[in-house]
Amino acid sequence: MSLDHDALEPELERIATDLDDLARFRDSAQPGWTRTVFSDAYRGSRQWTAELMRSAGMDVHSDPAGNIIGRCPGRNRELPVLMAGSHTDTVHGGGRFDGIVGVLSAIEAVRRLREGGHQLERDLVIVDFLGEEANEFGISCIGSRSIAGLLTVEHLGRADSSGTSLGSALESFGLDPERAIDNAWHQGSVHAYVELHIEQGPVLERSGTSIGVVTAIAGIERLMVSFRGRADHAGTMPMELRQDALVAAARAVLTVEREACGAPVHGVSTTGRIESRPGAFNIVPDEAQIWAEMRSVDREWLQGARRRVAETIAAEAEAQGVVTAIDWLSDQDPVAVDADVADHIAASADGLGLSWEAVPSGAGHDAAHIAHLAPMGMIFVPSVNGRSHVPEELTHLEDLGRGAHVLASVLERLDRTPTISRGVPG
Amino acid sequence: MSLDHDALEPELERIATDLDDLARFRDSAQPGWTRTVFSDAYRGSRQWTAELMRSAGMDVHSDPAGNIIGRCPGRNRELPVLMAGSHTDTVHGGGRFDGIVGVLSAIEAVRRLREGGHQLERDLVIVDFLGEEANEFGISCIGSRSIAGLLTVEHLGRADSSGTSLGSALESFGLDPERAIDNAWHQGSVHAYVELHIEQGPVLERSGTSIGVVTAIAGIERLMVSFRGRADHAGTMPMELRQDALVAAARAVLTVEREACGAPVHGVSTTGRIESRPGAFNIVPDEAQIWAEMRSVDREWLQGARRRVAETIAAEAEAQGVVTAIDWLSDQDPVAVDADVADHIAASADGLGLSWEAVPSGAGHDAAHIAHLAPMGMIFVPSVNGRSHVPEELTHLEDLGRGAHVLASVLERLDRTPTISRGVPG
Repeated sequence: MSLDHDALEPELERIATDLDDLARFRDSAQPGWTRTVFSDAYRGSRQWTAELMRSAGMDVHSDPAGNIIGRCPGRNRELPVLMAGSHTDTVHGGGRFDGIVGVLSAIEAVRRLREGGHQLERDLVIVDFLGEEANEFGISCIGSRSIAGLLTVEHLGRADSSGTSLGSALESFGLDPERAIDNAWHQGSVHAYVELHIEQGPVLERSGTSIGVVTAIAGIERLMVSFRGRADHAGTMPMELRQDALVAAARAVLTVEREACGAPVHGVSTTGRIESRPGAFNIVPDEAQIWAEMRSVDREWLQGARRRVAETIAAEAEAQGVVTAIDWLSDQDPVAVDADVADHIAASADGLGLSWEAVPSGAGHDAAHIAHLAPMGMIFVPSVNGRSHVPEELTHLEDLGRGAHVLASVLERLDRTPTISRGVPG
Repeated sequence: MSLDHDALEPELERIATDLDDLARFRDSAQPGWTRTVFSDAYRGSRQWTAELMRSAGMDVHSDPAGNIIGRCPGRNRELPVLMAGSHTDTVHGGGRFDGIVGVLSAIEAVRRLREGGHQLERDLVIVDFLGEEANEFGISCIGSRSIAGLLTVEHLGRADSSGTSLGSALESFGLDPERAIDNAWHQGSVHAYVELHIEQGPVLERSGTSIGVVTAIAGIERLMVSFRGRADHAGTMPMELRQDALVAAARAVLTVEREACGAPVHGVSTTGRIESRPGAFNIVPDEAQIWAEMRSVDREWLQGARRRVAETIAAEAEAQGVVTAIDWLSDQDPVAVDADVADHIAASADGLGLSWEAVPSGAGHDAAHIAHLAPMGMIFVPSVNGRSHVPEELTHLEDLGRGAHVLASVLERLDRTPTISRGVPG
């Protein structure tokens, strides 16, 4: 009954061809490989993905939220299904690997299982989730939210810069927004979910490790800080009497940076944007703003960081006579990976003789939403120079193949595992 | 022969009326008292100013650079003349005092002299210089540059954002640009120049002093620094591996600020503007720019500050893998006030029983250009809260009256002084 997992080794050339074929669907007027959600390029690629699933022997359909779902029937159709997948949309000016490798390696796993004549006990469901990347509506992971029952009427009402609502955009894409918010799968219907993804960071490459076993997906705290000082003539107002909003904002940028540099756990903190006014050489700026975020897989540190950063920014600004207002724009709790699923991923890597290490995920993923529905785990593969969301984004084919091999292996393992606890890694 | 200077005390109500009358010439579609050079409001005000000079008994003409020049004949028309004045244009959203008080108080001095039946030995020339404030052409002090022989063909070619050259703008204003660059007064033709101006800073108000005797007009060094780092995913790139252009720019803002905070002499340093890209929450910024300036009356400190700031910004950025490029956009040497003229101003204040202190000028003035032509001195009067270039700009009428009294007094003194050395204050 037990399968030799060496037989599940993917055919690298086939994955390489799939990567190349999918990369052709892009907006050639934009830099890199741009295939944003709802674009013409994305629309074209959806048919290609569905056809690839079909040619791998799956039953394929698109659900009301535009997820492309391929199903490979198991021997016992009554059992909760195994689910794998990711997304195939990209950011503006993005690359050829982010998300894409999770879908293609899952399809390759189906092909290898079929070619080996091995039918799983459970249905294996491969999902290419709609629109995972951040978009103008402010709602990433549209498809996985829908399946997890987390897409709401409020989300549908959010508008992009042209005033188009997410609901209208879904409708224009041939979908049914009403049904997209009533599309949740039943709790218990999914045995486990596994997503392979590029690391998007440099940790695996630097340690020379093949496989990242993800421990958790980072929580995010986002804030906007407004600084109000006093405009003065830059030639005549002595330094000690100024209320310089830009100086206060610059201190805040360094406060945000320092917070994660001193983190005892995984943590990153970034000021992504700054503005100041009025913007003349000879006027002390009276207004400034920064937009920043902090991320960590450690909920306690993240909450402490939120408090410390807010207090320090306000106190340092006040000391120079600058008034601050802090808006917390969004937050997202860290999402722990299921301990059993993570153990199975590690065991699969061990079984294939591949090095692995436990790593946090600093980026968000569809898996964070599917975790509401089922035990979830993630496999990371190395990113060259840790680059992502840029045209230079690259994962070597051999590294991708190792990850795809682990994915196929762990799906077969999980298929044989009757019960998966929904626990947090120790 | 010697005059009782108490008799030169200005009539405050008359100055108040003049201030109100001139303030009516403004662009009502703009905030504050907006009367920028070449605007319709400015054009209207020029006739008003000329008429005010005429009603004070002066011979008035407009020169090729649009300076309004009123002349009050002395007993000996062969002698080098005394000159006083300032400007009546304002910045966008400016106030009712900057520049204006220098012209109006000089005209009041003429009125008081005439009313007292006191004719000076020398001609007294009052100039309302054209366009002193910074403008879109990047050429401030148009009129005083012209009279000092410092307006050039290159200046005339400079264009505003609509592509109009300064030469064309002068022509559209009814002036003769060719003659404006050939309008220099002869060296030796001006005995001394005295300009009364609001301080635009808080020093006099804070010390409770009536009169500022200006020691020098600050030099300026302006720079633009470009920072180039590397864009990374803000969730996945560990802090220690980042090349964050915005963090480097923020450090530079604090380096600029720190430089003048530690200055042993008069010095101010300001970052007036910052930008960073791409500007998303989740991307480490790869590009940033700052626009900054340093000012001091101390040439040596200013040159040292220029070197120190450039070295520190580059070194701190390099330490975090960020490449910098520094452009020095403009510089202007400090201009010393003539020691004799400053001494006469102080003596006049003493003679009238008014408190005075020596102060630097952080802002530029027409006087800095006229200094190329003649011994120059400046009288500062207090600015409420040190505010300037804003609608709230205010100098109390009593304070203005004290300054105007000193101006009338020192003009009478200088008239009686046969020789003025062109020396630097000790």
